[in-house]
Amino acid sequence: MKNFPFSGGPEPALRLCVCVCVCVCVCVSVCADLLPASCGEEMTRGFLQELVDILLGFICKSNQRSSKVLDFHHPHQLKEGLEGFSLDLPDQPETLEQLLVDCRDTLKYGVSTGHPRFFNQLSSGLDVIGVAGEWLTSTANTNMFTYEVSPVFLLIEEVLLKKMRSIVGWADDEGDGLFCPGGTISNLYSILLARYHFYPEVKTRGMGALPRLAMFTSEHSHYSVKKSAAVLGIGTENVVVVKCDERGKIIPAALETSIATAKEKGLVPFYVNATAGTTVYGAFDPLNAIADICHSHTLWMHVDAAWGGGLLMSDRHRMKLQGIERACSVTWNPHKMMGVPLQCSAILVKKRGLLQECNKLGAQYLFQMDKPYDVSYDTGDKSIQCGRHVDVFKLWLMWKAKGSDGFGSQVNKCLENAEYLYDQLQKRTEFELVFKNKPEHSNVCFWYIPPSLRSLPPGSDRDRRLHQVAPRIKGRMMEKGSVLIGYQPLGTKVNFFRCVFSNPATQQEDIDFLLDEICKLGADL
Amino acid sequence: MKNFPFSGGPEPALRLCVCVCVCVCVCVSVCADLLPASCGEEMTRGFLQELVDILLGFICKSNQRSSKVLDFHHPHQLKEGLEGFSLDLPDQPETLEQLLVDCRDTLKYGVSTGHPRFFNQLSSGLDVIGVAGEWLTSTANTNMFTYEVSPVFLLIEEVLLKKMRSIVGWADDEGDGLFCPGGTISNLYSILLARYHFYPEVKTRGMGALPRLAMFTSEHSHYSVKKSAAVLGIGTENVVVVKCDERGKIIPAALETSIATAKEKGLVPFYVNATAGTTVYGAFDPLNAIADICHSHTLWMHVDAAWGGGLLMSDRHRMKLQGIERACSVTWNPHKMMGVPLQCSAILVKKRGLLQECNKLGAQYLFQMDKPYDVSYDTGDKSIQCGRHVDVFKLWLMWKAKGSDGFGSQVNKCLENAEYLYDQLQKRTEFELVFKNKPEHSNVCFWYIPPSLRSLPPGSDRDRRLHQVAPRIKGRMMEKGSVLIGYQPLGTKVNFFRCVFSNPATQQEDIDFLLDEICKLGADL
Repeated sequence: MKNFPFSGGPEPALRLCVCVCVCVCVCVSVCADLLPASCGEEMTRGFLQELVDILLGFICKSNQRSSKVLDFHHPHQLKEGLEGFSLDLPDQPETLEQLLVDCRDTLKYGVSTGHPRFFNQLSSGLDVIGVAGEWLTSTANTNMFTYEVSPVFLLIEEVLLKKMRSIVGWADDEGDGLFCPGGTISNLYSILLARYHFYPEVKTRGMGALPRLAMFTSEHSHYSVKKSAAVLGIGTENVVVVKCDERGKIIPAALETSIATAKEKGLVPFYVNATAGTTVYGAFDPLNAIADICHSHTLWMHVDAAWGGGLLMSDRHRMKLQGIERACSVTWNPHKMMGVPLQCSAILVKKRGLLQECNKLGAQYLFQMDKPYDVSYDTGDKSIQCGRHVDVFKLWLMWKAKGSDGFGSQVNKCLENAEYLYDQLQKRTEFELVFKNKPEHSNVCFWYIPPSLRSLPPGSDRDRRLHQVAPRIKGRMMEKGSVLIGYQPLGTKVNFFRCVFSNPATQQEDIDFLLDEICKLGADL
Repeated sequence: MKNFPFSGGPEPALRLCVCVCVCVCVCVSVCADLLPASCGEEMTRGFLQELVDILLGFICKSNQRSSKVLDFHHPHQLKEGLEGFSLDLPDQPETLEQLLVDCRDTLKYGVSTGHPRFFNQLSSGLDVIGVAGEWLTSTANTNMFTYEVSPVFLLIEEVLLKKMRSIVGWADDEGDGLFCPGGTISNLYSILLARYHFYPEVKTRGMGALPRLAMFTSEHSHYSVKKSAAVLGIGTENVVVVKCDERGKIIPAALETSIATAKEKGLVPFYVNATAGTTVYGAFDPLNAIADICHSHTLWMHVDAAWGGGLLMSDRHRMKLQGIERACSVTWNPHKMMGVPLQCSAILVKKRGLLQECNKLGAQYLFQMDKPYDVSYDTGDKSIQCGRHVDVFKLWLMWKAKGSDGFGSQVNKCLENAEYLYDQLQKRTEFELVFKNKPEHSNVCFWYIPPSLRSLPPGSDRDRRLHQVAPRIKGRMMEKGSVLIGYQPLGTKVNFFRCVFSNPATQQEDIDFLLDEICKLGADL
C-alpha cells in the first residue's frame, strides 16, 4: 500500500480494488508505462480507475446543493499557478500522480454546469447517461466520414435524424440532415443550402455570379444568422432585421413590409429565419404566418429551434411550434432543452439530396465508389467538415434510457419550474418582470429592484442605476459561488436577469434560493 | 449478489467493489434511479463503474494483436438487429442493464482505430492520457465561449496556442488562434481571414462588393480548400489548382504562372495554400519558395500543416517545414500525427486581432462588457461558432504527460516505421512503390502486384486490372478484420494502397504482418 503512487479518492471500497490492480507498480509512474507499453494493462486500468474516482466525485458533488457552483479566480490568479496548479507545458514528462492532481485542479477551478443552481446558460445539467455516452464515444475515437470507420455511429445518426424529422412532422420519405458542431453551424448550413437551392451555380462561380441577396430574421433572433451571412459572403447588411412585438415574436406584417422594401431596393429575398425559442425571451415566432409569407414569395423558410426544439418532445408544449412542419430546414439542439452533453446539434433539411449536391466534392481518398459495401452510407461528403466528431451516440443512449416519453416529462418539468419562478416573481415586490405574460418557454426575465431604487420614478436616472444592479449582483454571485445566472440588456431595456431551466436537477427550492440570494446580494445596492 | 442488475465485466476484483456500492438496488433499474434522483449516488457510481469496465476491456483489447481490427457487417445487417442489437428509439425507458449491453454491442460492431494494425486514417491510436482528458472534458460539460463558464479551459487554450505559435517560429508578441472542429474548418478560417484582411468590407457588404478573387492550391492539397471556397461564396472555379512534381510538391514556377494567368483573366489573387504533409503522398510543399512568391505578389500565405504539423515537435524532422514561420496562418491538427483523440485542430494566425475583428458581433447576452473580470478572456466572439466544444484539455494533459520531447520521440517512431515499410517494399518483388523516393512523412504508397499481373507489360490492360486489386483486397481485409489500410487512385495512377503511421502502438511486426496479409489475400487475384 505504501508504494501506491496515486493520490487518494473518495471511495475506500473502490480504492481497495484499484490497489489490487496496480500494486505491482513502482512509486513514480509516467505515461510511457501505460498501454501500448507491454505489460501496460494493469497500470492503464489503475490510472483510469483513479481518474474515474475523481470524475465520480465531481459528478456527485455537482449534485450537492451545499457545494459551490464555481470557485472563481481571475485569469491572472490562475495563470500565476494557484496552489501549485501550473498551466505550463513541460519539455519532460510529468508523473501520472501529478496528472491526476492536475485533473482534480481543473475541475476544482472550473464551473459545475450540472449544479442544480447553475442557471447561466441554455445548456445545463449533467445527464449521467449522456456522460456515459461521451465516455464511450471518446474511447471509440473515430470519425463520422465513412461507414468503413464508423458503421454503428453512422447508422445511429440515420436513425436519430429520421426520428427527429418525423417529430418535426415531415413525411417518411422526406428529408435529410446532419449533426453539426453547434447551433450556429447548423444555422449556417440552412443559409448555405437555401442559397444553393435557388442558385446552384454559386458552388462553382461564387457570389459574384448572383444578384444581391437579402435574408430576414427577427431582432430577437440569435446572432448566428448574421455571423453566417458574414462567413458565407452574403454580408451582414444584407440581413434585414425585422421588428418583434413586446413578447419578442416577429411581427408578420413587419416581415411583409421588410420583404417589399428590400425588393424595392433591388435586393433579392431568398431566406427567412424564424425562431422557435429566442435566446433571451424564449419567444416563439408565429411559424404558420411566416410559412404563408415564405410560400407567397417563394422564400426558404428556416426554423431555428436550437432552443425550442426540445418542446416537440412534450405533448403539452409542442403546439407552440405549430407550422414547423412547413419549414425547409430546422435547427434543433438536443444539447440544450433535452440535456444532452455538449455538443449535439442537428440540421434537418426537407429536400432530400440537397446536402450532398451542395457540399459534395468526392475526394477519392475517402469516398471511393468501388468499396465492398453500400457507399450511400459514406455520408461525410454532405458535410462542410471533413472529419466530424461523433455527437450522436450520447443522444441515442439517452433516448434508449428515457424513451421519447422521458424526454417529454423532462421538458415539462423545466417549464413547470419556469412557471413557478414566474409566479414567485409576481408575488415578490423586490422583483419586476420584463414582460407580463406567462413564459412560453423556460426563460424568465426580470429585474431585481434594490431598496434604494424602489421609490424612484421611472426615467433615465432610475434606468441608469438599474442597469448597474444585475452586473454587480452577478459579480458578487461569482465571488461567492452560490448560484449562477445570466443578465443582459435588450433593446431599450437596461440590464436584467434571464433565468433559464434545462437542468432536470433543479427543484423549486433552488428557485427560492436564487431569489433570496439575489435579494441578499443586492440589499445594499 | 443475485440481485445485481448489471451484466458481467472482465474484472472480478472490480466487480466485487461495485457490488459493494450498488447492492442496495433492485433487480431492474432505469436511468431515473441515477443522479439527480435523491439517493441516486450509489446507483450512479455503480452504473458508471460498469461502463468503465466495458471501456477498459475495449482499450485493452484494442491493444491486443490477436483481436480483430473490426467485425464488419453490412448496413442492412446492423439495421436488422444483429443478435438483438437494436438501433430503434423507444418511447419507454430501457433498463440500465440493457444500456450496458448496447454499449458493449456498439463497441463490438465498431472499428478499433487504436489497434496497432489500423492504418486506414491519418488519425489512429488510442492514447490513454488523451482518453482520460476526454472523459474529464465530457464530465465538465462546458462551452468555450466565455471565461465565466470555462475559466480553466480558456486559459489552457491560450497556453497551447502560444506554445504552438512559438514552435511554428513566430515572435512572442505575434499571433492569435483558435481550436476548431477539424482541419477543414481551420482551413476555412484561413481563407475567411485572408479575405477580411484584404477586404474588410466583405463582412458587412458581402462578396458582391469585391472583385472576382482567385486562390491557389496544389493538385495534391486537401479538398477542404475547394470546399471552403464553395462555402465562403468564392466559388470552386476560382480556386486555381497548381501542378505538382512527381513527389506531390507544388512547383513554384507553376504557381507563378498560375498567378499571372489569373491576373490576365481579370481575377484578383489573394491567397495561396501551401501543404505541409499532403493527404496521400505526405509531401511537403517548398514553403520558402512559396513565401517568396506570396511576398512579391502581396498574397496571404496559409500553410495547411494539419497532417505535417506534428513534425515540428521533432528535432530530426522539423526542417521539412522550413519557411512555415513566414506563413500568415497555419492549420495544425494534433489529432493526427500527435495522436490526440478526435477532434483537436488549431488555426494559428500571425496578425493579432484579426480573428476578433473578422468574426466579432458582440452579442450582449454573452459578451457583456460590464463583467467583473478581464473580458478579453471571453474569446468566443473570435469564433464562427457560438458554443464550441472543449478540444484543448486532452492535448494539454498529453503534453504534461509526454512533454514536448515525448511528442518528438513519438513522431520519430512513426517516421521510422514508414522507413521500415519503405525498405521492405523495395526488397519484396510482390510490391511496387508509387514513387521511388524515401518518404518524407509517414505516408508510404504502393501497389501489390498479384501473381497474374506480374508478367504483364505496362499499359492500359495491366492498369485496368491493377485498378481492381486494392479494392478487392480491402474488401477481403474488412471481412476478415485482421488489418485495415486505405487505397485510392490519384491523377493517372490507378488504385494503390496508402499506408500511414500515427499510432505509437504499431511495431515492425505489424508492418510485416500487413505485407504478408496483403499477399495472402491477393494471391489468387
